[in-house]
Amino acid sequence: MPIRPDRILADIEAIAGFSENPPTIGYSRPTFTPQWVAARDYVIEQAKAAGCKVRIDAAGNVHARPTTVDWDAKIWLSGSHIDSVPTGGKYDGVMGIVVPLEVLRAANEDGRQQLPLELVIFAEEEGTTFNLGMLGSHAWAGSLLLDRLVTVKNRDGQNYLEAGASCGVSAERMADERLKPGQYRGLIEVHAEQGVSMWNNDVPLAIVTAINGRRQYAGTIVGQANHAGSTSMHDRRDALVALAEIMVALEALANELSERSPQTVITIGQVWPKPNAINVIPGEVTFTLDFRGASNAILGEGDERLRQVFTSVTSRRSLDLTMIETEFLCAVPLDAAVCGAIETAAKSIGLVNLPAVASGALHDAAILAPIIPTAMLFVASEGGISHNPKEFSRLEDIGTAARILDALVRQS
Amino acid sequence: MPIRPDRILADIEAIAGFSENPPTIGYSRPTFTPQWVAARDYVIEQAKAAGCKVRIDAAGNVHARPTTVDWDAKIWLSGSHIDSVPTGGKYDGVMGIVVPLEVLRAANEDGRQQLPLELVIFAEEEGTTFNLGMLGSHAWAGSLLLDRLVTVKNRDGQNYLEAGASCGVSAERMADERLKPGQYRGLIEVHAEQGVSMWNNDVPLAIVTAINGRRQYAGTIVGQANHAGSTSMHDRRDALVALAEIMVALEALANELSERSPQTVITIGQVWPKPNAINVIPGEVTFTLDFRGASNAILGEGDERLRQVFTSVTSRRSLDLTMIETEFLCAVPLDAAVCGAIETAAKSIGLVNLPAVASGALHDAAILAPIIPTAMLFVASEGGISHNPKEFSRLEDIGTAARILDALVRQS
Repeated sequence: MPIRPDRILADIEAIAGFSENPPTIGYSRPTFTPQWVAARDYVIEQAKAAGCKVRIDAAGNVHARPTTVDWDAKIWLSGSHIDSVPTGGKYDGVMGIVVPLEVLRAANEDGRQQLPLELVIFAEEEGTTFNLGMLGSHAWAGSLLLDRLVTVKNRDGQNYLEAGASCGVSAERMADERLKPGQYRGLIEVHAEQGVSMWNNDVPLAIVTAINGRRQYAGTIVGQANHAGSTSMHDRRDALVALAEIMVALEALANELSERSPQTVITIGQVWPKPNAINVIPGEVTFTLDFRGASNAILGEGDERLRQVFTSVTSRRSLDLTMIETEFLCAVPLDAAVCGAIETAAKSIGLVNLPAVASGALHDAAILAPIIPTAMLFVASEGGISHNPKEFSRLEDIGTAARILDALVRQS
Repeated sequence: MPIRPDRILADIEAIAGFSENPPTIGYSRPTFTPQWVAARDYVIEQAKAAGCKVRIDAAGNVHARPTTVDWDAKIWLSGSHIDSVPTGGKYDGVMGIVVPLEVLRAANEDGRQQLPLELVIFAEEEGTTFNLGMLGSHAWAGSLLLDRLVTVKNRDGQNYLEAGASCGVSAERMADERLKPGQYRGLIEVHAEQGVSMWNNDVPLAIVTAINGRRQYAGTIVGQANHAGSTSMHDRRDALVALAEIMVALEALANELSERSPQTVITIGQVWPKPNAINVIPGEVTFTLDFRGASNAILGEGDERLRQVFTSVTSRRSLDLTMIETEFLCAVPLDAAVCGAIETAAKSIGLVNLPAVASGALHDAAILAPIIPTAMLFVASEGGISHNPKEFSRLEDIGTAARILDALVRQS
């Protein structure tokens, strides 16, 4: 049987049904919650029906490969994640799961039970469950160790090991089960672009040849809470209006840097003022900052200049600033041979001149790229909308991605 | 017996003990919570021990006057509030309760059981319990009616009538028990300045001759939630950075207006971004705005200009704005005769040339001023700090305020 987009759609809709929110608000599937477990179990069940065996590694990632293929056989790996941001869409991550699932299903139907392909579900990619992203792939790759995994906490105050214990996470087995260089032929992660560029330029699919780097920060500005009516403008030490001034300056900085390097972006996504009362001058504000750049030079210059903005505004306003960098991921070049294999597979089904793009978003692929040969295949996102319930990619484009993956695995 | 500051201090400390938070975080006593009820019951018990009878009106305000004085006798009224902002100080409101309490106590000890003074505790002054201030005095004065009291909700989703039912609030009796013009000789509210001006100029006490007006607003800016990494600066519709630009412009507007009218202030106290996630561009932000001015001309000009700021920033950034005015209180002149009585009383205990000031903060006195002769007596706040656990006023100044009130009530 050929790849069937209708089954891919059914998988997407089934997984969308496992959400803490109704679809009008957005899909919410934090890692290790009942909704996440239900979506994971759905994929496991589908993989088993497609002739796969399943194991869960000590980092909480799910692996499925044909029952007739040994666990230590060196085959292709393809997967992504099923966790979501708090009000996310149906496609982010999920697309990269249902594509290899359909490839495994079609091969099983055809009697090709030796297909050298393993499906992987990485645990906690988004970073919104534990405020740090790609924990499953990081822990498997060994780039985050146990000492860090015990410091990240979810909304219930549980760390990664505690929250994941019932989902297979195991501190004892973590080192033994770590991913080893050369263990797979390569990783192909299929993902929505989550930007507007491909859609606007009528590019349904593209090969990702590099992933932008990311620096994330968390900080607090402390001023003086005071009465909003009786404290003159001159006598205020308003922490929130200082952050507002900083945000305006950082927007200008990102605009300037992106003239030189188009994918440079700065985002203040979280802001928690205190006491957050209508008639009190905010005495304190906690925030997070996310900064991405296509080169390590831009990431270095941006870091220095954004710190200057924080320091100059807070010192001029006599406020106290504490800020730490919570993550620094370098820009990552992807594997030329795997990119070439994707190109060849695409040609074999009649698609020539697949464009090469860089990913503005980070993905689990960036974590595995230093260890095993890695590339990504992007599918266009309507209007570039992502992390939003309105997220949409065309089913025919997702189906084409599955046909490319199928061709790649079959021909190699 | 004379006025005894040690007993005033004991009352302040006892009331401070009724708080949802430990003192390191700040005193929290939302209206109608167990902590508020416990503080209220403490005052009632102390007033009864000082020879008073007590009643609670249909708006939830507590009244205490000497048992030998009829409820319909036209006497002086003095009081304030015991509810607090979420992380407030010990003195705000409480000072205005413990001063008349001590005056009643001293009179009772002296056998002056006919003292023409009633203590009042107004319910819900701050506006942080129901997001609208001075509800107890408003409801008693009839300037807010039942239809409005059912629309304001506390954090548990209860409206004012529901939340206050067990504390004496009664929709049925509300109209009958309303304050009537001429029902009291006058109101004297003792309160901390909550600004830095008196403290810095070494003015321990001042007569308040006017209260600034206040306009409050609530609104939402809606843009587009999107991925923080893959959405270029050019393609963003970030609601939070738009609010940041507005905040910087409003700070400049308030600075400009306050050059002409020194007590003009604008505060954005509450900000709730959505989804408030580290790697998502904020698609929506809800906020409140508090604007005060000493004249109705400034309040009118400021309203017009701040609306222009919101409209121009959100339209340039292609964002949707909804904003409503939740409160408009005019600037209020206080009663010259009551101010004169305070001045005379102060002279009788040796204090001459008590300065006259305007109040930047709103108080229950502003609500009652249109109905009964009203004035206020301010006590200096250390460093102008208020709505903050570090709030402090000197006990000797509070004691002097009590001696002035005592002299005023005795001589009139």
